[in-house]
Amino acid sequence: MKFNPVPLTIVDLKENASGYDSGITNFPVSLVNDHVVRISIMTEDFRWHLHPNSDEAFLTTEGVLFIDLEDRTVELAAGQFFTIPHNVKHRTRPKNGRSVNITFEKANMETVYC
Amino acid sequence: MKFNPVPLTIVDLKENASGYDSGITNFPVSLVNDHVVRISIMTEDFRWHLHPNSDEAFLTTEGVLFIDLEDRTVELAAGQFFTIPHNVKHRTRPKNGRSVNITFEKANMETVYC
Repeated sequence: MKFNPVPLTIVDLKENASGYDSGITNFPVSLVNDHVVRISIMTEDFRWHLHPNSDEAFLTTEGVLFIDLEDRTVELAAGQFFTIPHNVKHRTRPKNGRSVNITFEKANMETVYC
Repeated sequence: MKFNPVPLTIVDLKENASGYDSGITNFPVSLVNDHVVRISIMTEDFRWHLHPNSDEAFLTTEGVLFIDLEDRTVELAAGQFFTIPHNVKHRTRPKNGRSVNITFEKANMETVYC
């Protein structure tokens, strides 16, 4: 069920994020028009990348997320929101241990590692 | 600042929602492609309506939100997420006192009251 968004269903974010205690994972929880809402859980640093065809928004729900940009690092605590414009190179990583986030982006978003 | 999303800025949801203690208000906090993220705060019931050209997603961040649909009522606690498909008639209302939510929808979303 976690990997198949079901229309008209309540998604409990904490429940969906539970049990993922190592590594990097994300899965869709809802479709909104041609965009997708995902839960992203990380205990490790992700790779530098950019999305040529989509902005990407992060809302931190547990822990703290660092978003490295080329000129600075953004620190997002739970309840804080940040949008990375398309084509902007970035890297996400947890500050301490585990970071849980919701992302909003185009369902057909492309990723270029760099 | 609250009414003008600024690119590459951290949005603190609690801070943005503070000070709105009566009535119904919402304002955009971020643009994501052709979609908009809004904070919606309500202490009163909204009117029955539908959106012909956009799905609308709600994430409750404070309080409890009722989403009335024609055949049932969805109850969203903080940390729960629900998407209303386009053309589905609905009404939102706070369960007790004040409900704060993030919404995600097309920036040019239309509303039809019914």
